[in-house]
Amino acid sequence: MTRVRNPQLNKNGELIHLLSLERLPSEIVTHILDTATNFVSVNDREVKKVPLLRGKSVFNLFFENSTRTRTTFDIAAKRLSADVFTLDIGRSSTSKGETLLDTVDNLSAMAADLFVVRHSQSGAPYLIAQHVAPHVHVVNAGDGWHSHPTQGLLDMYTIRHYKKDFSRLVVAIVGDVLHSRVARSDIHALKVLGCPEVRVVGPRTLAPAGFESMGTRVFDNLQEGIKGADVIIMLRLQNERMSGALLPSREEYFKTFGLTPEKLQWAKPDAIVMHPGPINRGVEIDSAVADGPQAVILSQVSFGIAVRMAVMAIVAGNSA
Amino acid sequence: MTRVRNPQLNKNGELIHLLSLERLPSEIVTHILDTATNFVSVNDREVKKVPLLRGKSVFNLFFENSTRTRTTFDIAAKRLSADVFTLDIGRSSTSKGETLLDTVDNLSAMAADLFVVRHSQSGAPYLIAQHVAPHVHVVNAGDGWHSHPTQGLLDMYTIRHYKKDFSRLVVAIVGDVLHSRVARSDIHALKVLGCPEVRVVGPRTLAPAGFESMGTRVFDNLQEGIKGADVIIMLRLQNERMSGALLPSREEYFKTFGLTPEKLQWAKPDAIVMHPGPINRGVEIDSAVADGPQAVILSQVSFGIAVRMAVMAIVAGNSA
Amino acid sequence: MTRVRNPQLNKNGELIHLLSLERLPSEIVTHILDTATNFVSVNDREVKKVPLLRGKSVFNLFFENSTRTRTTFDIAAKRLSADVFTLDIGRSSTSKGETLLDTVDNLSAMAADLFVVRHSQSGAPYLIAQHVAPHVHVVNAGDGWHSHPTQGLLDMYTIRHYKKDFSRLVVAIVGDVLHSRVARSDIHALKVLGCPEVRVVGPRTLAPAGFESMGTRVFDNLQEGIKGADVIIMLRLQNERMSGALLPSREEYFKTFGLTPEKLQWAKPDAIVMHPGPINRGVEIDSAVADGPQAVILSQVSFGIAVRMAVMAIVAGNSA
Repeated sequence: MTRVRNPQLNKNGELIHLLSLERLPSEIVTHILDTATNFVSVNDREVKKVPLLRGKSVFNLFFENSTRTRTTFDIAAKRLSADVFTLDIGRSSTSKGETLLDTVDNLSAMAADLFVVRHSQSGAPYLIAQHVAPHVHVVNAGDGWHSHPTQGLLDMYTIRHYKKDFSRLVVAIVGDVLHSRVARSDIHALKVLGCPEVRVVGPRTLAPAGFESMGTRVFDNLQEGIKGADVIIMLRLQNERMSGALLPSREEYFKTFGLTPEKLQWAKPDAIVMHPGPINRGVEIDSAVADGPQAVILSQVSFGIAVRMAVMAIVAGNSA
Repeated sequence: MTRVRNPQLNKNGELIHLLSLERLPSEIVTHILDTATNFVSVNDREVKKVPLLRGKSVFNLFFENSTRTRTTFDIAAKRLSADVFTLDIGRSSTSKGETLLDTVDNLSAMAADLFVVRHSQSGAPYLIAQHVAPHVHVVNAGDGWHSHPTQGLLDMYTIRHYKKDFSRLVVAIVGDVLHSRVARSDIHALKVLGCPEVRVVGPRTLAPAGFESMGTRVFDNLQEGIKGADVIIMLRLQNERMSGALLPSREEYFKTFGLTPEKLQWAKPDAIVMHPGPINRGVEIDSAVADGPQAVILSQVSFGIAVRMAVMAIVAGNSA
Repeated sequence: MTRVRNPQLNKNGELIHLLSLERLPSEIVTHILDTATNFVSVNDREVKKVPLLRGKSVFNLFFENSTRTRTTFDIAAKRLSADVFTLDIGRSSTSKGETLLDTVDNLSAMAADLFVVRHSQSGAPYLIAQHVAPHVHVVNAGDGWHSHPTQGLLDMYTIRHYKKDFSRLVVAIVGDVLHSRVARSDIHALKVLGCPEVRVVGPRTLAPAGFESMGTRVFDNLQEGIKGADVIIMLRLQNERMSGALLPSREEYFKTFGLTPEKLQWAKPDAIVMHPGPINRGVEIDSAVADGPQAVILSQVSFGIAVRMAVMAIVAGNSA
């Protein structure tokens, strides 16, 4: 079986699309995080703006609604001085029966430079990346249960910021791992950056054996799962899962997997608590933890803007 | 009872948030109006743009829908060269159960500089202002029945423009005063600026005795209420009130309180007629008055952009 | 009967509004196309931006929803460095009963420079153009079945680009001509530019005799209609028409009027195939044609941005 070239890289090994953290070389990941450091300081300035993408056209293609994620890309692109166009896909031509690639072709013909794509179907951003012209770039803003690479990168930025070195860390990802593209992206990135122990923790129904083949240890007991952890990543419990048969009641879930100050003591004393947001207070996380000294949830948000600026600035600077 | 410090001012007495015209010193009000004068001329230029807020991020947080008011803030912010982000709150995380302050914390973490807040709950902008970091500013774009300070300020700008001096004016506010944040804001501002006689005029059911404690005279007869007035501020009759028991039919309302050219003669010959818009032709105001020589309704709109530019430029220039 | 002055031109004959291609002098049309040529090259640059409309306020007034057309104007205006404001008309004051002209007056008072208007009622852009102040401009982005002048102009740009000269061309417009503002605009423009033979081709129910008075030849047989044609403009079959009594089934329509590679051979060998988009693959056009070497559909899209930039730059430069 021949190895297909990684569609995210050009022939010089430079990043031209960000589709997934799977198979992304550690130098690329590190380059993105290093670049993001510069943008963190831009966001602290009076004038939060650099001209790197001036006169470029960035299109937000959100086939699945996510105001929060869309806003972060919107902010990042405008701080790079790009022109940003957000398509209300629900009301646009795709609903008139136009295909995904016809929509992309049309926007490309309008001289799009970069597509930020969110889609409920895993693989949609890949499909687009393989279709567009060499000077057009694609950033995956979440596809199905598959991948959410900028979230994975901002999580890595956050961990590196607080823990410096990945080589001795124990990281526990807690919650509905099965349906989480955040978890998948984090696991890939942690492996790439040399994290020795990644654990996934959740109800047996939501953290299937398959995750062991990704090199993680699987726990269905919170105490064992976060014992001695340096980093705890709490996942959002999607309300829409609540009604299904996979989960007990919210109260039951909180009792078993909700992170409280008491349970947090099972982890290392200097453990940090992360969450991709929006948080469900009293479901997967107690307010005393979310607002407490070990939570770094709002730092994740801040770093997220810088990381997205870095990704867009890097891909837009390389050609296929 | 100790006097709580006005949350709109920093310790030097400078404006850092605009939440209400209540308890705002007259020098601050006058400073805003004076600053707006400069921006009126910017809006007449070929290039309607100044760089005062370049690289700043302004977030429109409209928890209550108002395309018109949102657009005026959008225009004002962009003419100050800010980046403007409008959140479609109905579709965003607040609908996923995130709290108001969690939403604000998240946007603050994205390096927001200024929130323009509209909310159906009185006091929501106060809550946000008391919560945000010292370098973040809040402008109230209307909260419940409580306050709509930029509307109050643009009304003051308009009156000052046409009448120069407040010290001898008779101002009549006509309509559904009970439910009007515009009326409350106007009354506060007129008092602050030294207007000797403010009247509220409307059906007995909509202009309760409580207004007398605000230092206004209450009338339920239009002729008596606008007799000798220099300024008549007509309020919009909300359609949603029509169906209630508080009001007679539209036709009946127009007959009793609708302003026609004939009734306008009860006021001073040089009286100006104002309206916050959008007008209901044939309900609270006759077209012959709305389009007539005494109406200054479109001037209010023009001055409104300049006043909002002034408010944003002033608060963004001061720190807590 | 006195001839009413063309409301699109000022007294020097310069374009101040673009409302319809009807009665537009050929020099004006040619001037727009020539100007667009410069903007085609702007769209190929790294920095796709020129400062021609810097500090101007462009308002998208889409009373009829069209994400695609609105996006093209948004892109064009931002590449000219304008500030662009898009009103969500469905949620705005017009739904509160404000009249069209009151909305326009209000936005004009906010110092609007240019309105891009789409309306389901034919003539709405005219109404607005006759109402606004001399320094305010109106561009029709489609009104009822009447006119879609920027689509007509971009079609002319495309034909000129590929065929150079209009004086010997046979152009066939195929499909639901009766309900198509694109067809009407194309026919006017082709006549103005001296095209000797314009044909309209479609089911008898959709291409009434009235078109013959516009100087076109009417065909209800595809083979006869496109025989020897240099240019074939396929129209989109609106899904909403499908259910009516005017049309047979989709399958039947495709069999009779759908353009396949086989049928395309009836035209000249170097004929180009155009379509205003979004295309209905397998309804009015076969994928093999839409993606084939004779299709210039994506070029139309690219040229469309440049043509809209040209129109906005030209009208904004002239005063009434």
